[in-house]
This record gives sequence, C-alpha cells and structure tokens, in this order.
Amino acid sequence: MAEQAHIGVTGLAVMGSNLARNFARHGHTVAVHNRTPARTRALVEEFGGEGHFMPAETAERFVASLERPRRLVMMVKAGAPTDAVIEEFAPLLEPGDMIVDGGNAHFEDTRRREAALRERGLHFVGTGISGGEEGALHGPSIMPGGSKESYEALGPLLEDISATVDGTPCCTHIGPDGAGHFVKMVHNGIEYADMQLIAESYDLLRRALGMAPGEIAEVFRTWNRGRLESYLIEITAEVLAHTDAATGKPFVDVVLDQAEQKGTGRWTVQTALDLGVPVSGIAEAVFARSLSGHAELRDAAQGLPGPSAKGLTGAAAERFADEVEQALYASKIVAYAQGVHQIQAGSQEYGWDIDPGAVARIWRGGCIIRARFLNRITEAYARERTPVTLLTADYFTEALGAAQDAWRRVVTTSAELGVPAPGFSAALAYYDALRSERLPAALVQGQRDFFGAHTYRRTDRDGSFHTLWGADRGERPA
Amino acid sequence: MAEQAHIGVTGLAVMGSNLARNFARHGHTVAVHNRTPARTRALVEEFGGEGHFMPAETAERFVASLERPRRLVMMVKAGAPTDAVIEEFAPLLEPGDMIVDGGNAHFEDTRRREAALRERGLHFVGTGISGGEEGALHGPSIMPGGSKESYEALGPLLEDISATVDGTPCCTHIGPDGAGHFVKMVHNGIEYADMQLIAESYDLLRRALGMAPGEIAEVFRTWNRGRLESYLIEITAEVLAHTDAATGKPFVDVVLDQAEQKGTGRWTVQTALDLGVPVSGIAEAVFARSLSGHAELRDAAQGLPGPSAKGLTGAAAERFADEVEQALYASKIVAYAQGVHQIQAGSQEYGWDIDPGAVARIWRGGCIIRARFLNRITEAYARERTPVTLLTADYFTEALGAAQDAWRRVVTTSAELGVPAPGFSAALAYYDALRSERLPAALVQGQRDFFGAHTYRRTDRDGSFHTLWGADRGERPA
Repeated sequence: MAEQAHIGVTGLAVMGSNLARNFARHGHTVAVHNRTPARTRALVEEFGGEGHFMPAETAERFVASLERPRRLVMMVKAGAPTDAVIEEFAPLLEPGDMIVDGGNAHFEDTRRREAALRERGLHFVGTGISGGEEGALHGPSIMPGGSKESYEALGPLLEDISATVDGTPCCTHIGPDGAGHFVKMVHNGIEYADMQLIAESYDLLRRALGMAPGEIAEVFRTWNRGRLESYLIEITAEVLAHTDAATGKPFVDVVLDQAEQKGTGRWTVQTALDLGVPVSGIAEAVFARSLSGHAELRDAAQGLPGPSAKGLTGAAAERFADEVEQALYASKIVAYAQGVHQIQAGSQEYGWDIDPGAVARIWRGGCIIRARFLNRITEAYARERTPVTLLTADYFTEALGAAQDAWRRVVTTSAELGVPAPGFSAALAYYDALRSERLPAALVQGQRDFFGAHTYRRTDRDGSFHTLWGADRGERPA
Repeated sequence: MAEQAHIGVTGLAVMGSNLARNFARHGHTVAVHNRTPARTRALVEEFGGEGHFMPAETAERFVASLERPRRLVMMVKAGAPTDAVIEEFAPLLEPGDMIVDGGNAHFEDTRRREAALRERGLHFVGTGISGGEEGALHGPSIMPGGSKESYEALGPLLEDISATVDGTPCCTHIGPDGAGHFVKMVHNGIEYADMQLIAESYDLLRRALGMAPGEIAEVFRTWNRGRLESYLIEITAEVLAHTDAATGKPFVDVVLDQAEQKGTGRWTVQTALDLGVPVSGIAEAVFARSLSGHAELRDAAQGLPGPSAKGLTGAAAERFADEVEQALYASKIVAYAQGVHQIQAGSQEYGWDIDPGAVARIWRGGCIIRARFLNRITEAYARERTPVTLLTADYFTEALGAAQDAWRRVVTTSAELGVPAPGFSAALAYYDALRSERLPAALVQGQRDFFGAHTYRRTDRDGSFHTLWGADRGERPA
C-alpha cells in the first residue's frame, strides 16, 4: 500500500502554502493541492526540502492520498468559493472524514455548512486562524470549532503547528459548529479596537505634545517593556520609527490616512447588536475606519471651527504620555471586556459552552492581539468564581481604579483640544454607565410609553404598566 | 353596481383601526377587514359615526368591495405574518392593484416582496408610518416607497390623512421599492439617538447639579420654546414633571431603568455598517439601551471605583444648564448628519434617488422626531449647492461653531464626574474627526501592512504599496 498523508491542504495561496509548510516542518506528511496545479508544483519545488509533501494534481488523487479518517484543510476565500470547494470534495469523502475551513468565514455560514455535511456523515470544522502569513508558517493561534470527535483526530496536528506560550499550545477546541469562527470574528473585532486605541494614543501624543513619529516610536518601545507588552504595540513602534526612503519623511506621514477593512470588524458589531451586547469600543473602531475613507466629507469639513486651545504645556504636558498609557490600558480592558461579553453571549445563544479563559490562553501567542495582558484574562476566568464581567475581576478592577483619573484627563484633553478619541471616550462612558446606580434609561422608558404605549416596568412591583398620558395620567397594568 | 370603497385596511389593531378612521374622517369610504371579524365589527360599532366604513368578513368580500385599481393597506406584524397576509390577498388581486405595507418591515424584505409582486403585475408599496397611535389617527408622517405609478394613485389619499406643516403634507414619494421602509428605519435610528441625547442631558443636569426631575422638566420646557422645540423635548418635560400616584415620588424614579427596543435602531446600525457609513451617535444610543438591560453586569459593577469629584459648584454650575442645551443641539446636528449620510448612501447603493430635503420636510410634522430644527435641514438641501454633509450647511456650521466650546465643556464635565455621556462624546469625536486634516488611520494602514501585507496607498503617488517589513523594509508596488 502506498504511503498516505497525515493531512492535506487545498488552496495554496500564501496562507495555505505556509500552513502546509508548517505541517511538513513538524514531520507530518502533507498532501497539497491547488485548483491550478502550477502553484502546487511551485510549492514543492521551492520548499520541498522542508519536509514530506505529496503533490496532487486532481481532487481525486488528493483525496486518495490522505489516510483515513481524512483530514482535509481548505484555505480558500470566504463565501461562494468556500461552498464550491466543499461541493467539489464532499462527494469524494467518506463518513468520518473531516473538512477544515481555515478561512475567515462568517460563523452563520459555518453553522449552515456544518449541519449540511453532518447529514452526509462528514465533519466540518470551521477554524479561526490568526497570525497572518508569518503566523501560518511559524505558529498561529488556532480556534477550531466543530465536533469533539473531529478535534480528537485533528487537535494533535493543529496543536503541533500552533504557537506555544510557556509550553502550552495556542490551540484548543472552542466549541461545536460555528464556535471557532465566531471566536475568531470577535478576536478580529478586538483587534480593530486595540488598533484604534493605539492610533488615538499616537494621535494625542502627536497633536497635544507636538512629538515627532520617531519620538512617539520610543514611547511605544518603552510601553512595550511594561504591562502593555504586545505584538501590536511592538509593530506600532516599528511603523512609527520607519522613514520613507523616497521622501525622507516619516513613513506614517506619506501613507494615505484612509483605513481599509475586510469585514470581520463589521460582522462583530452586527452580531453583537443581534445578541444585545454593547461593543461600543469595537464599533467606534469600525466607524473610525469608515469615516477616514470618506474623503469627500472630510474635504468638505476642513473649514469647520475647532477649539482655540492647540496643545498642552507645562505640568500637563509632562505627565501626558504617562496618562495616555493609563488611558490606553484602561480602554483596552474595556474593549476586551466587551469582546468577552460577546463571546459569552454567543456561547449561550448557540449552546457552545465556550470557556473564556481558554480563549484568552490561546490568544497569548501566534495571533495579532497576542499580549502579556491575556495572561491576566486567563487567570480571571480560571478562578472558581468566574467574574460576570472582566471589569470586576480583581486585577482589572484595581488597574481601572488606578488608571481612571489619568483616563478621565486624557478624554478631557481630547475634547478640549479637538483631537478625536472616540475609542477612549466610548470605553470610559461604558465603564461609567455600568457602574452607575441609576441610568437615564428610565426616562427613555417613560418617553416610549408616552409616544408609543410601549409600557414600562417599575422598581417596586412586578409587571408591566402603562400611564394614560393623554387622559388622566392614571397607571394601568399592561 | 354597488358602492365601492376608495381604500381598504386589513389588520385592525390600534394602528390599523386609527388609520382606517383617519381615512374615513377625511371623507373616504374605507373597507375594513380583520382576520378575526369581531374586531371589524367592534370598529364599526364604536366609530362607525366618524365616516363611511364598509366592513368585510372575508378576504374575498374585502377585495371585491374596493374600487379599481385596488388600494389595500395592510397593518400587520413585520416578518412571517406580513408574508402570510400578502399570500392571502395577492391571488385575489388584479394587475395594477396595490398592496400597501404600513408596518415596520425591514427594507430588504420590502425589496424582495416588491420584486415578487411586480412579477405578478401588482404594486407593493412598503410605507413607513411614524407618529404612533395618535399620529395614525390625527395625522402621521408617511414615507411610501414603491413605484411612481402607485404613488399617483395612492399619494392623494395618503397626503389627505398625513400631518401638515405650513399647509404642506408630511407625505411624499420617497423612492422605488424599499426606499420608504429604509427611510423609516433611519428615522427610527435618529429617534434613538435623539432620545439618548435627551436622556444624557437629563442625567447630567440631575447628577452634576443635583436638580430634581420636576426642576429639570422646567428646563426642558424652556428649551422647548427655543431652537430645540420638538415633540420629544415636549414629552420629556411631561414625563419628568409627572409624579407617581402610588408613591408620591417622581415618576422617573419608580420606572425600572432598563430600556427596551424593538429592532429598528439595531437595523439602522447594521445597515450603516454594510454601507460603510459611520453612525456612532445612533450606535451609542442602541448600545446604551442594551447596556441598561444587562442587570447582572450592572449589579456586579456597582463597586467599581469612580472619580472623587461629585458635582459642579459656583460659576461652572451656573452656566451648566445652558451648556447642556448647546451640547444637546450640537450633538443632535451630528446625529441627523449621520442619518442623512446613511440615507444618501442607501439611495446611491440601491438607486433610489432620495431627496434628503424632502425627507426632512415630511418629518417636520406627525412623526416622533418632529421638530422646528427640521426646517433648517429642508432649507439646507433645498439650496442649489447641496452640502456634502449637513455639518457644512451654513446654518449648521455656524450653530456648531457657536456651541462647540460649551459642548466640549459638557463632555469634559461628563468624564470628570463619571456621568456617562456616550452620545455627546461620540458626536463630538465624529465632528473632530471629520474636520481633522490628518487622521491616525495612516498608522492603522501601516499596522495592517506590517502584520497582514494588506498594502497601503500614498499621499504623493497613485497605486498600492507594500513595505517588506520582515526584510530590508524596501517598498514595492502591490
């Protein structure tokens, strides 16, 4: 009997190629396949020395070369191409075989596909993979959904190629059907928020203190030696320190300031709205990107009046960089608290039984939001009494308490100087709203009852009530 | 030949009954029908004296009683019940007949239904109706979509029963297929934002100045005599002035502070995300409602540390109510600017050719957000040079310029006192972002290129570029 591959990868663009090489480098025999065989040949020619590849030019040969139960990883574009590839391979597979979708599919699509393939006896494993091209090659963070049974067969291979932190692989079974892609989506939403908060920090340092990008790079390098240590802070320093060769200007000054997006941030907010979870930090990050791209509005708005205050001086200037660090840390805690809340709400809605501590654990390495900070989240959810919100885990409560004065001053400075900080201020408003004893939502309920007879509940009695606003203003049970 | 009705209404819950009565009071013969005939009989018994009703106990008789082309208004629940009623009546209708859906359908559903019925030769007119029960009876704001042809037959009747302002009916043809329901959706999103801003104003006055609800009601009454004059400000004063009979306490203090929502605010934000339109003011309003309902998080967060400052005193206190008025006005301008932007983006995406000035005109009366303010929006879009954004229409630019110092102080006070004002601060951040010459989106693009090779554009050259971050950091065309 001919040798068979442990795992197969179809779709050999950069992410797929790098994943295949990662498997091969870990001693696995990897079947490789691509719609256009030239890419398959190129991979084997260029990287064949890294391990044992079994190139296949047709779908049939590719499937035939896999040991059973077959583990077939597809790395293709989300949407219709994913469905097309599934339909190409599913008829060639046998009960118990597994299709792993490593793309950025919407979790609702993954749920649909998983259910359809389950009826055909196949496992469909929607798997979030974070870390970009480099992560795929050197060790990503891997978030597989799908059945427990499929994880038993797949998990060891995925854990082999994932990043590790303190000897622990950055891969765990997230939960059934779409749980993996859901968690990857929220990961990306948090990534948007994190990037936006960093961008606001940079902008404030630049415009309030008049610092040059290179100087701000040094500030980020300092921060990266402390509690903010993370991949995003690290690369921010690199980007800010970079000089454009063509002009000799700071790189960040020659880049067009219109941020783009691919959709997972938007999905996160849309899903959070369906789940009733406030994710204002993520939403402001998505909006900030779309606002930046509306060149016609921005051009028109250039003449709008701003404040007379132009920057900080004296003692306020001297302490400002430290205050921004604190505001960034506190706002980041809020963004993660909102993301964790969304994961918990999704888990409950879809019956996934996701462990937030385990999610934080596999985000510590490999992925874009990897950070020292995530150890603290893992700890918070590893304790016997799981906090209702991340904000009330002891470590984070203390950090927020210590940071809040500086955080408030940064938000205040932003408003006074006219330097927008929507992420910082949304995070602070969320924090202050959650800890408010009473919210003006009571007035909103009164308004709704007035104009739409939508009824309200009372603080002192059960039931729903309506006030006859247009008549004697008596109250009636509704 | 028997007498026939000008128009028919099926679905006689309060909204449907009141609309039918409104038609009858305007001299139209109205066929009325309900799934359970008891309701039809009750309507005619109780209100038969108001005009000429033709009750019908079956769908067939109802349809037969309508003059041709038939104008059939359905007032039933959105979703599956709407589809069921359409399927009940469509087979009984003839080419050229019209089904008017006056419920709160999602505009995508309306597009689907319109296309399906068009194939069957029928007009489907998704129509937004705002004003609640009272509006339906005494004159709502009406936003019909659908074909021009259908508006020729329907418009005169709808304009008869709509509210009027300065002799102009609050009803106009919005645009084809789903345009009416889309605009109604955004109307509701703006309503959410407006209510949230009012709620924040109340909360700030109460917590920063220690004012009682009855005193704040007086402040709102004063505001309602000025540029903020509007239905929502008016009823806010009523709600705040109301005393709970059972306890003798201010009504707003016995209402449970957990705001509810029915979905159109959420839809507005979800759609805006798809269209790439930043609607942070509306989003914060939706999030504020959902946050208020998370009792378990709020309970847990009660111990979180807040600022030491507890309220305003002296000169800051004396000028604060006026500053809040200015912040409210400025933030409201931003919320409307975001809503109008969304309407323009939707109009472009779906080819609706919506006139924002006409939309503002029909919102001046009848609907929940009716306000003096809307005259200014109508004026802004009636000028020869349509502003790119509402913010740059002369009147609004001047108002924002005059208000901004106070607006900034209110946002600052909110942060300092720990009284959340997510709507005010999101609006200010939007304003400051739009008028910023450079945004830190350039840094975000740099980060994205670093970790994902997502490429960036330059300020000085066309094309897309990638920097080889992991190698010599040279730049390559992408």
